[in-house]
Amino acid sequence: MQKNRTYLITSILVMLALLSLSPQVAAEESIESLAESVDSLGTALTFVWLLLCGGLVFLMHAGFSLVEAGFTRAKNTANILMKNMMTICLGVLIYWLVGWAIMYGDSIGGLFGFSQFALSGADNSVWNAWFFQMVFAATGATIVSGAMAERTNFKAYLAFTVLLVAIIYPVYGHWVWSGADFALLAGDGSPIVQICGASFHDFAGSGVVHSIGGYAALAGVIILGPRLGKFKNGKPQVIPGHNITFGFLGVLLLWLGWLGFNGGSTLDGGDAYMNLVVANTFIAAAAGAASAMITTWVVTGKPDPSLTANGVLAGLVAITAPCGSVENWAALVIGLVAGVIVYAGVMFNEAVLKVDDPVGAIAVHGYCGTWGLLSVGIFSVGMGNGILEGAVYAAGAPGLLYGGVNQFAVQVAGALAAIIWAFVVGLIVFKLIDAVIGLRVSEADEIAGLDITEHGIRAYPEYIIE
Amino acid sequence: MQKNRTYLITSILVMLALLSLSPQVAAEESIESLAESVDSLGTALTFVWLLLCGGLVFLMHAGFSLVEAGFTRAKNTANILMKNMMTICLGVLIYWLVGWAIMYGDSIGGLFGFSQFALSGADNSVWNAWFFQMVFAATGATIVSGAMAERTNFKAYLAFTVLLVAIIYPVYGHWVWSGADFALLAGDGSPIVQICGASFHDFAGSGVVHSIGGYAALAGVIILGPRLGKFKNGKPQVIPGHNITFGFLGVLLLWLGWLGFNGGSTLDGGDAYMNLVVANTFIAAAAGAASAMITTWVVTGKPDPSLTANGVLAGLVAITAPCGSVENWAALVIGLVAGVIVYAGVMFNEAVLKVDDPVGAIAVHGYCGTWGLLSVGIFSVGMGNGILEGAVYAAGAPGLLYGGVNQFAVQVAGALAAIIWAFVVGLIVFKLIDAVIGLRVSEADEIAGLDITEHGIRAYPEYIIE
Amino acid sequence: MQKNRTYLITSILVMLALLSLSPQVAAEESIESLAESVDSLGTALTFVWLLLCGGLVFLMHAGFSLVEAGFTRAKNTANILMKNMMTICLGVLIYWLVGWAIMYGDSIGGLFGFSQFALSGADNSVWNAWFFQMVFAATGATIVSGAMAERTNFKAYLAFTVLLVAIIYPVYGHWVWSGADFALLAGDGSPIVQICGASFHDFAGSGVVHSIGGYAALAGVIILGPRLGKFKNGKPQVIPGHNITFGFLGVLLLWLGWLGFNGGSTLDGGDAYMNLVVANTFIAAAAGAASAMITTWVVTGKPDPSLTANGVLAGLVAITAPCGSVENWAALVIGLVAGVIVYAGVMFNEAVLKVDDPVGAIAVHGYCGTWGLLSVGIFSVGMGNGILEGAVYAAGAPGLLYGGVNQFAVQVAGALAAIIWAFVVGLIVFKLIDAVIGLRVSEADEIAGLDITEHGIRAYPEYIIE
Repeated sequence: MQKNRTYLITSILVMLALLSLSPQVAAEESIESLAESVDSLGTALTFVWLLLCGGLVFLMHAGFSLVEAGFTRAKNTANILMKNMMTICLGVLIYWLVGWAIMYGDSIGGLFGFSQFALSGADNSVWNAWFFQMVFAATGATIVSGAMAERTNFKAYLAFTVLLVAIIYPVYGHWVWSGADFALLAGDGSPIVQICGASFHDFAGSGVVHSIGGYAALAGVIILGPRLGKFKNGKPQVIPGHNITFGFLGVLLLWLGWLGFNGGSTLDGGDAYMNLVVANTFIAAAAGAASAMITTWVVTGKPDPSLTANGVLAGLVAITAPCGSVENWAALVIGLVAGVIVYAGVMFNEAVLKVDDPVGAIAVHGYCGTWGLLSVGIFSVGMGNGILEGAVYAAGAPGLLYGGVNQFAVQVAGALAAIIWAFVVGLIVFKLIDAVIGLRVSEADEIAGLDITEHGIRAYPEYIIE
Repeated sequence: MQKNRTYLITSILVMLALLSLSPQVAAEESIESLAESVDSLGTALTFVWLLLCGGLVFLMHAGFSLVEAGFTRAKNTANILMKNMMTICLGVLIYWLVGWAIMYGDSIGGLFGFSQFALSGADNSVWNAWFFQMVFAATGATIVSGAMAERTNFKAYLAFTVLLVAIIYPVYGHWVWSGADFALLAGDGSPIVQICGASFHDFAGSGVVHSIGGYAALAGVIILGPRLGKFKNGKPQVIPGHNITFGFLGVLLLWLGWLGFNGGSTLDGGDAYMNLVVANTFIAAAAGAASAMITTWVVTGKPDPSLTANGVLAGLVAITAPCGSVENWAALVIGLVAGVIVYAGVMFNEAVLKVDDPVGAIAVHGYCGTWGLLSVGIFSVGMGNGILEGAVYAAGAPGLLYGGVNQFAVQVAGALAAIIWAFVVGLIVFKLIDAVIGLRVSEADEIAGLDITEHGIRAYPEYIIE
Repeated sequence: MQKNRTYLITSILVMLALLSLSPQVAAEESIESLAESVDSLGTALTFVWLLLCGGLVFLMHAGFSLVEAGFTRAKNTANILMKNMMTICLGVLIYWLVGWAIMYGDSIGGLFGFSQFALSGADNSVWNAWFFQMVFAATGATIVSGAMAERTNFKAYLAFTVLLVAIIYPVYGHWVWSGADFALLAGDGSPIVQICGASFHDFAGSGVVHSIGGYAALAGVIILGPRLGKFKNGKPQVIPGHNITFGFLGVLLLWLGWLGFNGGSTLDGGDAYMNLVVANTFIAAAAGAASAMITTWVVTGKPDPSLTANGVLAGLVAITAPCGSVENWAALVIGLVAGVIVYAGVMFNEAVLKVDDPVGAIAVHGYCGTWGLLSVGIFSVGMGNGILEGAVYAAGAPGLLYGGVNQFAVQVAGALAAIIWAFVVGLIVFKLIDAVIGLRVSEADEIAGLDITEHGIRAYPEYIIE
């Protein structure tokens, strides 16, 4: 009986213990499946965020179309719209077929990628990433369009766009964003990174997108030459744009697009640093406009609309690299400086280089892109410090103002690499296209306007135009 | 004592067991409440996603306004803007009052719904779903506006819009998207589905939105007749649009809108297939533009801006049905074919049918819509196969190229149903409106322009217009 | 042995119990860490939602630019674009430096805030909140721009914008949205709230943004006087806008922006009531357009485009306060009434007050803003009742139609406070600016147009303009 009782107790207790274990097992399963749900919800948030940010970046093509059309003459408008439309269309097709493979395919020595052509083997994560990267690639191409407006052969422009999206853009992009161990500018195994003691940081593309586009454009306008009538006895003449409203609407759409451009570039819908990024982006844009406006006001006596609008873009281009690595006040300074650079750059291009860039694309994207890259090396707080505690995607080392030199050194290296790569390859490619297709339209065609000669239509057939 | 000891042990162990159970219970409660939080977070993500996608679809009304205004004459611009504005406004009001009830109310034999008028009994899920569906309904109506531009009585157009949003659109929509067991084209109990052996698949509306709009427009322009001066001795004349910049901006806004249109149509913020959908959408759009441009280039000697822009829309309309069911390469082919169809369709309409569609809406939305529906039956991978492993909203059966015939058969049935329904009911409704209100303005009014005669203003009073 | 056996059993059972406890502990840790993940995912969803909604509100600046430019003359377009561009730029800079601190800083007696200047001490939550609030602040300023178009000194306008964003807007905003215990219009400790027995409810700013902007504008146009030629022998003359297409595109962009403006104003990506908010917003906008169109049709014989477009805005402004507190049918009524108010308001301003408001901003934002505030007190369901079961951000008490008077009382108080504050401070500030800078340009400059005189350019240099 005693035995029985002990047995009974034992049985009950074992049962109780098992009872307490069996839901335990169930609970663990529930927790695991919940953890999976939470994980996939996090991924879904990133998908949603990047698709919408990509949509905003896509809208930048409407912005670029309007800026380029508005700040040039009515007789070339249809041609400009066609160039910009085909830029995004070829951007989609070529970045799908080739560009992504060169940029994010398996790395050949840190120099370029070479796999996943035509997105072979893609799954939903790859399609998401491809979409966001594709709209960036097409943006790089469209910068060149603006600088070469009103005199470039349409076929030649298309050829260049294909080569930029297939090779020029993704190769430099591979150096910076591929994540490859030996990626030339950012991989731990790269000699440049080892010598400088820091990785090159270009958050959303002051270099990858804007410098590449801007300095390729510089190569283009040098080979192409200025528009007829732009220089008289070596003195630059004003050729006013035909519709300032289009230009300003374009700038506002570009600004909105930049919310996606910079905001999406943490590539993670759950990374709270997107808020710092967006705040800095808007502060720099506003500061760029204000300082460009004040500069023209002081110099010319009146606040100039075109340059103020370009001041917005200058601030945006400059903050694109440092937006996730600096304090608000630094974003303000970066924007203010960019607004002065864009004015000085436009003057320098016309007065010193004697090149003709109808929309100021070289100053905005080239010079302010370089300034943005360098500003990382000056104002970077350094990941893990201060406001960047907990950040996972910012410049790794502090900038000059915080006592660091390594980040500045590698930013100089990366900025120079962008200038050299885009300008030299740009020169070669444009020379080649000029030889094969002919880069420039005839004088008669240029005078008649490219709408009629290249496309057989007029953009505004009912209006009487001077 | 022995007894006491056993008792003591028992007590302790029971306590231990209970101790191990009580947090167990707490844990289970925590898990349940966590699971609820995760669930409602998933729902919230869907809400956010669909509201923003709906916003992008709403933006398509700006796109349609600009395309229609830009590709027609300045003297009818204010009228066109008013038509498009009232289309979305009536779309909101009528789809709230009636349309939703006919489309998603309790099914009457799979033919139409009939409950929830004025969204009675709606909760937040219904408001979310209504919003996303409402912007689609209004889109269907706005297609008709473009085809009938420059000569239609304003009051008559409003009357048609009400009938399209209240009846024509939601009835066909009920057949395809209602989810009713006997829904004519997609319900398991429908005789069509049983005969074909597959459910009709129209992901985001190549049929429901675009075919319906396109073939209703065809009925409209037949009854309405061409604009004065469109045909001279039976030969179609070019009547150029007054502002190509508006047209291109419109197309870019429409393209962006399609990101929401197609991307949102999984109706689930957590469905990763939205990424395949968006990638295919952009590939087809780009391919459509490229092939339309090349077609015009080959045929006419110059790349034509208007048709290239329509090529973008052609690719978008076509990919709307198959975007979640096909591989990237198929999206490319679908877009390329659409770009040719839009060119051929415009020529066919003018030269053979002798109808006048100022913006090419019938070719874009009608013919390319049909092509999109059929392409599902050709290129569908089949849900669960290959890249569609894990997909829950795609064409159920494989297409012709993958050895299936059932999906193709039902796509033919659904495509024909759209043509017949929209065209026949369109004819009846337009005849009726013509009899009651009068469909067309007077010759004098058409020559003077509808801005002055219908609205008493000029859209551009300061410009001197030829 | 008996002892041993009992010992053995005890040991086993203790082990079992501990065994069942140790995964228990692990499970609790997992649950805690999961709960944290879910929490931060919820926060991330709010960040994403508010950044994107903020982006849509930012787009409203493009909308306002186009509406103001389109509905005025071509000779002042560049000036209008510059004003609108600098409004958002100064909005960013001043709301960063001062405005946020006055609105959301530590409360000084419920009257204004005073800390966090230049966002000192900000973290990602603050940057997110600041961004969303900043685009609202800039919107308030831009309303004034429209009313004072075509005759205001550029420098004077900039000065006013700074003062509005730094002081006028954020002080009233503090009274309503700061959440301070003694916040003048909404804090539990405020005497106004205690007397009325309910808190003032202005969901997204019919008062804070639109009334403030509208009545400040009224002060402005009174001091400024009408444009030359607006009144002949005391009778108002029509001065038609130069580009209706811009005007309508602007209205459509504003409407889209309102999706973010109202939709984002629950400030919580997980609050399902965003769906009711958006549905009501769209219903009221559509109703506003319909009733404004019908009103003009009945009164003048033709449906007027400008007033129909303003009807959309009227509905949107009015529904901004009540959108999260009322049924769909009430949103319809609120919009219909707003469409009549905007027509009557424009007539009243011209015929009775003899003020000149080129774009109708005072009627749209002022009068319809007041109507929106009052409509809360009429149609509010009352938080927790009916469709608002589970809502956490709606008007607290039911409106007149549901038998409550407290909510109506406090809405009257808040609406009057907005009128008095904006109008009186507006008068003082404009008088001050007039004395120091000079509010109005010279007659010669006004006739020549502000583009040439203020900025030295023409917006459309190639077109021949009457």
